[in-house]
Amino acid sequence: MKKTLLFSLAMLPLVNGMAQGQEKKPNIILFLVDDMGWQDTSLPFWNQKTMYNERYETPNMERLARQGMMFTQAYASSISSPTRCSLMTGCNAARHRVTNWTLEKNKSTDGETDVLNLPDWNVNGIAQVSGTDHTFVGTSFVELLRENGYHTIHCGKAHWGAIDTPGENPCHFGFETNICGHAAGGLATYLSEQNYGHDENGNPTSLMAIPGLEHYWQTGTFATEALTQEALKALDKAKAYNQPFYLYMSHYAIHIPIDKDMRFFEKYKQKGLSDKEAAYASLIEGMDKSLGDIMDWLEKNGEADNTIILFMGDNGGYASGSGWRDEPLFTQNYPLTAGKGSAYEGGIREPMIVAWPHVVKPGTRCDKYLMIEDYYPTILEMAGIKDYHTPQPIDGISFVPLLKQTGDPSDGRSLYWNFPNIWAGEHGPGIAATCTIRQGDWKLIYFYETGKKELYNIPDDISEKHDVAASHPDIVKQLSADLGAYLRSVDAQRPAFKSTGKLVPWPDEVE
Amino acid sequence: MKKTLLFSLAMLPLVNGMAQGQEKKPNIILFLVDDMGWQDTSLPFWNQKTMYNERYETPNMERLARQGMMFTQAYASSISSPTRCSLMTGCNAARHRVTNWTLEKNKSTDGETDVLNLPDWNVNGIAQVSGTDHTFVGTSFVELLRENGYHTIHCGKAHWGAIDTPGENPCHFGFETNICGHAAGGLATYLSEQNYGHDENGNPTSLMAIPGLEHYWQTGTFATEALTQEALKALDKAKAYNQPFYLYMSHYAIHIPIDKDMRFFEKYKQKGLSDKEAAYASLIEGMDKSLGDIMDWLEKNGEADNTIILFMGDNGGYASGSGWRDEPLFTQNYPLTAGKGSAYEGGIREPMIVAWPHVVKPGTRCDKYLMIEDYYPTILEMAGIKDYHTPQPIDGISFVPLLKQTGDPSDGRSLYWNFPNIWAGEHGPGIAATCTIRQGDWKLIYFYETGKKELYNIPDDISEKHDVAASHPDIVKQLSADLGAYLRSVDAQRPAFKSTGKLVPWPDEVE
Repeated sequence: MKKTLLFSLAMLPLVNGMAQGQEKKPNIILFLVDDMGWQDTSLPFWNQKTMYNERYETPNMERLARQGMMFTQAYASSISSPTRCSLMTGCNAARHRVTNWTLEKNKSTDGETDVLNLPDWNVNGIAQVSGTDHTFVGTSFVELLRENGYHTIHCGKAHWGAIDTPGENPCHFGFETNICGHAAGGLATYLSEQNYGHDENGNPTSLMAIPGLEHYWQTGTFATEALTQEALKALDKAKAYNQPFYLYMSHYAIHIPIDKDMRFFEKYKQKGLSDKEAAYASLIEGMDKSLGDIMDWLEKNGEADNTIILFMGDNGGYASGSGWRDEPLFTQNYPLTAGKGSAYEGGIREPMIVAWPHVVKPGTRCDKYLMIEDYYPTILEMAGIKDYHTPQPIDGISFVPLLKQTGDPSDGRSLYWNFPNIWAGEHGPGIAATCTIRQGDWKLIYFYETGKKELYNIPDDISEKHDVAASHPDIVKQLSADLGAYLRSVDAQRPAFKSTGKLVPWPDEVE
Repeated sequence: MKKTLLFSLAMLPLVNGMAQGQEKKPNIILFLVDDMGWQDTSLPFWNQKTMYNERYETPNMERLARQGMMFTQAYASSISSPTRCSLMTGCNAARHRVTNWTLEKNKSTDGETDVLNLPDWNVNGIAQVSGTDHTFVGTSFVELLRENGYHTIHCGKAHWGAIDTPGENPCHFGFETNICGHAAGGLATYLSEQNYGHDENGNPTSLMAIPGLEHYWQTGTFATEALTQEALKALDKAKAYNQPFYLYMSHYAIHIPIDKDMRFFEKYKQKGLSDKEAAYASLIEGMDKSLGDIMDWLEKNGEADNTIILFMGDNGGYASGSGWRDEPLFTQNYPLTAGKGSAYEGGIREPMIVAWPHVVKPGTRCDKYLMIEDYYPTILEMAGIKDYHTPQPIDGISFVPLLKQTGDPSDGRSLYWNFPNIWAGEHGPGIAATCTIRQGDWKLIYFYETGKKELYNIPDDISEKHDVAASHPDIVKQLSADLGAYLRSVDAQRPAFKSTGKLVPWPDEVE
């Protein structure tokens, strides 16, 4: 009997897939939501509860927040591809130059302006190898996770590289399973009745057709749910493989079109919402249910205790498109101004939660700021991966000290944005060619076309209603110098004036 | 004008995806056919033309042979998984211990014998990481190609690892695109009318259902053709990516079931063949058309000149199953005896052709022997990849010198097989637990169960009709010593006797 027991114990490490002495690596899930506003949740990220927090129901975000830490000043780019390329490379968008959204090879998606010639940005996105013009070449953290024994799963939207370039394929960045990821940044429809954008012969009706969900066509399954079911199947496989896993759960939700998720639509109608607003609310709750289903899977499969979940949005809520919502334009991220595509907080501030069992204190809140490129070194640190070498420099700074409450890497640090582009077809506050710096409480936005500089004290004026540039020339000067120096240091791009052909001055080259 | 031209030339290397000074890497295609017999072609690999060479039509194999080098003594294991695991790891099957075919996790596919207890072989196949019991852990050459800038495509049958183990997923071995590869080593059906093994609800009707071809269901497309079309789409992508590519075109053909490929069936009926034999011939010609379509793609896309094609079979033609063919059992690989699963030449000798523009002399023939694990170092050498490090030792030896006609790595070398297993449900000449050595002209087979040793002079007696062990005791002794020493050196497995519990002696431990 004793002998048998000893034998069993000796075998245990092998059965668990671990050589003796090896530490068990945590599973990591990054749950990224598309076009989600800071207020598109019942979980208040502001210091007050808004009408939107009252309206929407996201019980699983609340559940995750109870288990982990909320971040109230988590930033990304204001547009999808720049954010996602920063996530994958650890580089600021000013450096990787994928500053607007990508789709077709060698085609800029920029709009036009009478005043500016826009720079020749990396319209083809990122790539894992050189050889494609207009790409930024980098090694993703997913590749490093894979090389270090992780089973890596991509589920949902990719949007890192143009069609027919290496970046369109998530498997070029270290993903071993790719569910539905391709070049497109949007979706034709959430509806299985429309085969997610395929005709009756199975051919895509647009570049936004979601690939790979044939099994769910005509089944009444909303795309959010289909992706979740596929993700859970992939997690079953990951569990069987006995490898730590990285799941990138990158929902197409809550990007337009605002289709009705009928599992939740009627509930919001009964709350008195209009059809459009009820549909929007149903998109949000469908996304939240996906989070809950994944958390349930972890609990049922004994993996909750060894799994880190990071919840993040990719850019601000879409607030500039007429016809989709009944809320007035530019208000639906209140108290933030504007939304996706804008340099104002509505465009760049994201809902973010991190739960890390035994490391992050449950139910905590962090008001320090951080930036999307910080995910790269953070996730590698979480996985215990050090001394990695990448062709690109890593601009991101690990926020593990914030999670552990052992220090503040944001102290004295500036955050930078560069958008020397025009978001085609969209107009509104802060939706323009800009560069921006956040330093401590202050935020300076420089408009390339007009030369205008706006200065806000963010904690005092989160809605950016009071431009105080005129009354704080020293701060404007100091932030302009910081921003200009940074942009030059990373070889950032800027527009030129059509009238003269000359490059627009850097922010520290004008008053 | 001159300035423009200079500018254009200077840009050229970048446009071609090549930093200056970099040598252009060749594309590599490995075209692997399942269960193809040495005579299942109009291209004679023997020094005489057989009735089978007259019967079958494989014009594209002939075309490839005109461009490259035929190998008349190319060997593999007699069963699929051992061959494929040797291919991927560069290890002899005696070392990797995946000595029989794999399918379900922790389940041996071995048959039973009254006499022997079979060893606890690696029933779960190979894996890229440790953590799964009964796997052999290795880094594949595909992973090394990928790390060196190749875009890597898997199309067709994988069969490296059991269901729910890491080895079931080709993307764990460096493949970035996986078309239809999974754990299974066979297919339910070639017929789109049967959804390649899925019911009307899209659910698989057996473990052999081909995944991933939903687009072709009910279209009348034979599986061989569907795989080819998918491969060509993947090549279009590879071309767009501007990366060198590795395509593993691993046909399910010509594995049973012997469905009729109607594009070719009638032609063979009109030649007077029975339904079954015409169906078999149609499977062969469908596979050959696939080769031709790929060669056509290369020519049309300007890649023929920079693409190496290796054509190979994974084991001998299936000759032991009654009901599938009208040819007498064990004869259809004539002049070779028996077929798949046998230690005789019918089980292990494969049709093989290599075309390598500007390197291999067109229309040549090589009679030196080589072994499936030799593909690993050969392909890496073709790609210019040196100084790689792998967790497993590489048993294979590059056959590039044979291709370049600069030397003979087979000179003085022995080849080894170890099959300490029982192929369930199959019986016939040489289908037994055996280990085997080929040394120069001589081949010795040792039968674990009976202790019998057979000795053949292969060039003199390719059909292995004349066992000359009794008249050449010195050669038997020398080969037994070589084989026994090798098997011990790689920690090979062997059965034990049920009667005594003792391990069967190594070949050099008995007379």
